[in-house]
Amino acid sequence: MPRPSPFDLVRDALRRVEAQFLEDTVSTVSGITEIGQYLHAGGGKRVRPALVLLAAALCGVEGPGVIALATVVEMIHAATLIHDDVIDGAETRRGRPSTNFRWGTQKCVLAGDWLYMQAFKVALQLRHFGILDELITLTQAMVEGELLQQEMTGRVVTREQHLELIERKTARLFSVSCKLAAMLGGLGDDIIARLGAYGHHLGLAFQMVDDLLDLTASAAQLGKPVGNDLREGKMTLACLDAYAAASAEGRAHFECVLRERGYRSVAFDEIQALLAASGALTRARLEARQHAERARELILLFPPSPYRDALEDLPLLMVERAS
Amino acid sequence: MPRPSPFDLVRDALRRVEAQFLEDTVSTVSGITEIGQYLHAGGGKRVRPALVLLAAALCGVEGPGVIALATVVEMIHAATLIHDDVIDGAETRRGRPSTNFRWGTQKCVLAGDWLYMQAFKVALQLRHFGILDELITLTQAMVEGELLQQEMTGRVVTREQHLELIERKTARLFSVSCKLAAMLGGLGDDIIARLGAYGHHLGLAFQMVDDLLDLTASAAQLGKPVGNDLREGKMTLACLDAYAAASAEGRAHFECVLRERGYRSVAFDEIQALLAASGALTRARLEARQHAERARELILLFPPSPYRDALEDLPLLMVERAS
Repeated sequence: MPRPSPFDLVRDALRRVEAQFLEDTVSTVSGITEIGQYLHAGGGKRVRPALVLLAAALCGVEGPGVIALATVVEMIHAATLIHDDVIDGAETRRGRPSTNFRWGTQKCVLAGDWLYMQAFKVALQLRHFGILDELITLTQAMVEGELLQQEMTGRVVTREQHLELIERKTARLFSVSCKLAAMLGGLGDDIIARLGAYGHHLGLAFQMVDDLLDLTASAAQLGKPVGNDLREGKMTLACLDAYAAASAEGRAHFECVLRERGYRSVAFDEIQALLAASGALTRARLEARQHAERARELILLFPPSPYRDALEDLPLLMVERAS
Repeated sequence: MPRPSPFDLVRDALRRVEAQFLEDTVSTVSGITEIGQYLHAGGGKRVRPALVLLAAALCGVEGPGVIALATVVEMIHAATLIHDDVIDGAETRRGRPSTNFRWGTQKCVLAGDWLYMQAFKVALQLRHFGILDELITLTQAMVEGELLQQEMTGRVVTREQHLELIERKTARLFSVSCKLAAMLGGLGDDIIARLGAYGHHLGLAFQMVDDLLDLTASAAQLGKPVGNDLREGKMTLACLDAYAAASAEGRAHFECVLRERGYRSVAFDEIQALLAASGALTRARLEARQHAERARELILLFPPSPYRDALEDLPLLMVERAS
């Protein structure tokens, strides 16, 4: 019999997270409530709360505190997206008008602030200082990551700078999501660290694949224009690699797209040809797979269970996804 | 011998707060550090940290925790100002270019986020859940207050709506500043509540006088243009009162300034004449004095000390200030 899809195991708990999210994002000031809930209703894979729930089940930690933590990471994620959209001036998110486009900068700055505070407020009710330390440090690292991204936009950065960026922007929240329930349950530091490392590698793999899909998928698969990162001035891993391997002419192509913020003088096809010819796509895919594999190895150190199976399958499903 | 100025008693401690602020607002990402520190270097009266310090001394609470709390309230205040400037699109603050004007929306949204988190991080080190509850609830109320302000801008609101606004935007932080050290010191709930009520009334008096000065002081005294609130679409207490008492023609004058966002068709002199003729300035001054007096009465319930003297003098000094 085939294994169930990883998230199926926590389907009921995810529904409770949805309910708590809706309940806990009601502000006395109406504008705030609608922005957070609009974003949330827009979908998303709920990967982060699912990680909290699966890691909790893996460790035998259960109860309302686990649901609260899963809600908290989704709130932090939502707050980050609201402020990121303000900062990037994005007009759409997941195929719908972005909150920024719909409500304007003023309301979105405040709604994001409020949602960050609300996440901390819910977390605070668990009365666990270590979890609060973790969440505050995480949020600061993510905010700093977004600022780094601003500074790096339009530039050819080093591989290390790019890796720091995706660690802060994506992997850190994955890592913390995997650790929280074990912290709540008072498990040992080695277990918590192992779960954190699992989430870290999973998050890196997830982001690397996301960045690759932007370069290789069809617009229909993605539900948004392809080659979008480069159009926005973001050189992701494969592009940095292809750039380093390219001739002066090839480099000039990348620089031209970064400068023009679009595919006017250089077509996206030409960029794709450079990526393919250099082997950069293959190498980036390999790197994503290595992180997925590392995550898988780490989770196999836990005793067997359906939850371990789910967490074992997740990294490879992630790197093999087509959208 | 005349009593020393209220802040003189805590001059040394305030210097330690300054030092901790500079030390604790250093981010690994340089843009963040400079924005917070620029705003802080721009001055301000440091009323909020001084309140923390004076209330601590009044209650016999001392140590590095008190300095940390005074730093925290100044950080929250600074973060609020950074986001408020983004939202109001203000070009200046305290006679200098605003952070928003100098660094732009993107960096300022992130710097404000970071500074809020940093305030919580410093507070978290005190390992006191009650204080964290208080700070998170405060910050949310302030954020909601700014959103209310956005919704109220350009409109004639009720007196109650205006009072709710200044409670959230100013009095709440004053109130919490007065309570924090007593909470840290484990004092009784009645003492904490009394200090909170003192700060509440002091904050209302402070804001009412601030709003009055905008209508009555000279530009030289204020260091900024007068009649600025109304120009920005903000009807403060005396204006709301004068509006309620005015003829249809008088009301139309206020409405015209709100609509034009400036004194084009109606001169500021005409508004001042309406304010004076209606007695609204006198009544608003009286109301500010009543809050100051209420604060004074509350502080006199504490045993005599130089710190009580300072907190007793502060409300009246505040309502009598000319700038």
